Amino acid sequence: MLNRSGGTKGGWVSTTVVIGIDLGGTDIKGGLVAHDGRVLERRIVATEAFGGPDHVVGRIIALAQSLRESAASRGIEVAGVGIGAPGSISSREGMIVSPPNLPRWDRVPVVEPVRSAISLPISLENDANAAVLGEFWRGAGRDCDDVAMLTLGTGIGGGVMLGGQLWRGRFENAAEFGHMIVEMNGVACKCGQRGCLEAYASATATAARATDRVWRGEASSLKTLLDRAGALTARDVVEAASAGDSLAAQVWDETCGYLAVACVNLQHVLNLERIILAGGMSAAGVPLLDGVRRHFDRLMWPDVGDRPQLVLAELGNDAGFIGCAYLALQAAGGERVGVA
Amino acid sequence: MLNRSGGTKGGWVSTTVVIGIDLGGTDIKGGLVAHDGRVLERRIVATEAFGGPDHVVGRIIALAQSLRESAASRGIEVAGVGIGAPGSISSREGMIVSPPNLPRWDRVPVVEPVRSAISLPISLENDANAAVLGEFWRGAGRDCDDVAMLTLGTGIGGGVMLGGQLWRGRFENAAEFGHMIVEMNGVACKCGQRGCLEAYASATATAARATDRVWRGEASSLKTLLDRAGALTARDVVEAASAGDSLAAQVWDETCGYLAVACVNLQHVLNLERIILAGGMSAAGVPLLDGVRRHFDRLMWPDVGDRPQLVLAELGNDAGFIGCAYLALQAAGGERVGVA
Repeated sequence: MLNRSGGTKGGWVSTTVVIGIDLGGTDIKGGLVAHDGRVLERRIVATEAFGGPDHVVGRIIALAQSLRESAASRGIEVAGVGIGAPGSISSREGMIVSPPNLPRWDRVPVVEPVRSAISLPISLENDANAAVLGEFWRGAGRDCDDVAMLTLGTGIGGGVMLGGQLWRGRFENAAEFGHMIVEMNGVACKCGQRGCLEAYASATATAARATDRVWRGEASSLKTLLDRAGALTARDVVEAASAGDSLAAQVWDETCGYLAVACVNLQHVLNLERIILAGGMSAAGVPLLDGVRRHFDRLMWPDVGDRPQLVLAELGNDAGFIGCAYLALQAAGGERVGVA
Repeated sequence: MLNRSGGTKGGWVSTTVVIGIDLGGTDIKGGLVAHDGRVLERRIVATEAFGGPDHVVGRIIALAQSLRESAASRGIEVAGVGIGAPGSISSREGMIVSPPNLPRWDRVPVVEPVRSAISLPISLENDANAAVLGEFWRGAGRDCDDVAMLTLGTGIGGGVMLGGQLWRGRFENAAEFGHMIVEMNGVACKCGQRGCLEAYASATATAARATDRVWRGEASSLKTLLDRAGALTARDVVEAASAGDSLAAQVWDETCGYLAVACVNLQHVLNLERIILAGGMSAAGVPLLDGVRRHFDRLMWPDVGDRPQLVLAELGNDAGFIGCAYLALQAAGGERVGVA
């Protein structure tokens, strides 16, 4: 197993460097990452999803090649590439199955074309799993073997490490935390279920709940913003709440309450050491963390001794490619890395 | 890892036999179990919990000794003892921490006194985990590595196997399925939370919901039964529902609905191959299984390919001591058992 502490004993005898690539609907993030987790270089290019799967796979290859050339110019050889991709992937077949934010992609092979173009070992992982691996290795999950991460954005995803290992599930579809049902017979979720966490506590759902109440005529400082911008964001809601707006505070508090229910339920199922709040909404910082913690303490049974730490993610948008680098290091025999 | 298929190649060259003991609030079940899972003998004695911890531990020792003597009379040597106990246990310290149905027990050492009395290796496990190990080995979880079990009785407990290993959790308190919150701000649960699965879908809660509605004057065949017996059971409810009573059918359907929400949420978190419905309520059989399956199919997203099998437990009250025997076999080097 990879030495998570990084660093070598007895000085820099050798350095293994890998490439981590995080494919998103808007952009592709890539980085050169050393065996101890240091990011030597990061690059971002537009996904250009409109060009279709072949075009995007070509852009992944070009990004990997440019990072490899950059490494070569410093005399460093790259040991492998890890790729994170949205939605379902088949690691066995090396393909992206049906990414929600890359329309018209269906079972697109990725591992084979990238491998044949650049002749390096290629690993493929779901992007939510890659992000939890990144935080586990170098971020908010350091020194912690049993950790779940809730990724809060337009939707809600996540990942879970048990005993220091990623738990992918029987059908490689574990940690779909956004689709835990938190309201019996609740509002429709775009997944087809009703009452999903995502339908109440995602950034989208939070903004929609506030918008709805302002439209219905409730008094709020958000009214001016809505009239001017035509739409609200979760950031608008949390900022207005922090500035003392009562409606915004209620909406934000509801969001934190639903997230806390999810954390309580995760704890009763998995009995974790730590739960990480990540994704775009985690940029809200203290208002998110304090809100979720307050509701968690209210909702969770009073037994001491089995409460998880609730923390914010630390790596931001870098978590995905850093986690992919971790995978690439493992594939490259990372077990032996970090010990001189 | 223990060969779950049991049986020896090339005939009965050798047989490893262990003792499994399942401590309950009312009785203590014990069995002599062969390496292939055959139950050679089973015995039940009263717990006599009124006598206090020392008395009960003495009864465990006496039961183990009588089973060992029975084995000796057939020329069989016992390789070890596995003990399952209610509530929290500390496997490291070999003690029962605070069993809910053994009042006034607090941190009672079990492993050491039993070991010194009978000089055999002793394993200790939580009873819910022991039961899932039993079903995993010889019951409804056969040929399945990723399985959760919901134990439905007075309360709701459970256990979970991931990748063929029991997942105990960071604080040895995983799989507390009964305390997943299924109703925000719902009814009070005796654990101190509100809206727990157990407070809606346990046998106790099911009977209480029916009783409440009959008392409030709703028409039901259960009225006569309630007047005569003074109380209803979950069995009364499911029998009346099967006989066509409309109120009973509604109450039972609600119970199945809540259980299905729990199964959906477990699936989104863990992505399992199979979910086993066990415990006293699983004796209801088809009305339970069909009810939970129907609601599960209604509630779970329509994606094919990641649905768990929902099944009934197969071992009944034997699951606990059989699972304890499995533990004892593993401790006795079960890896080498079952291959001549």
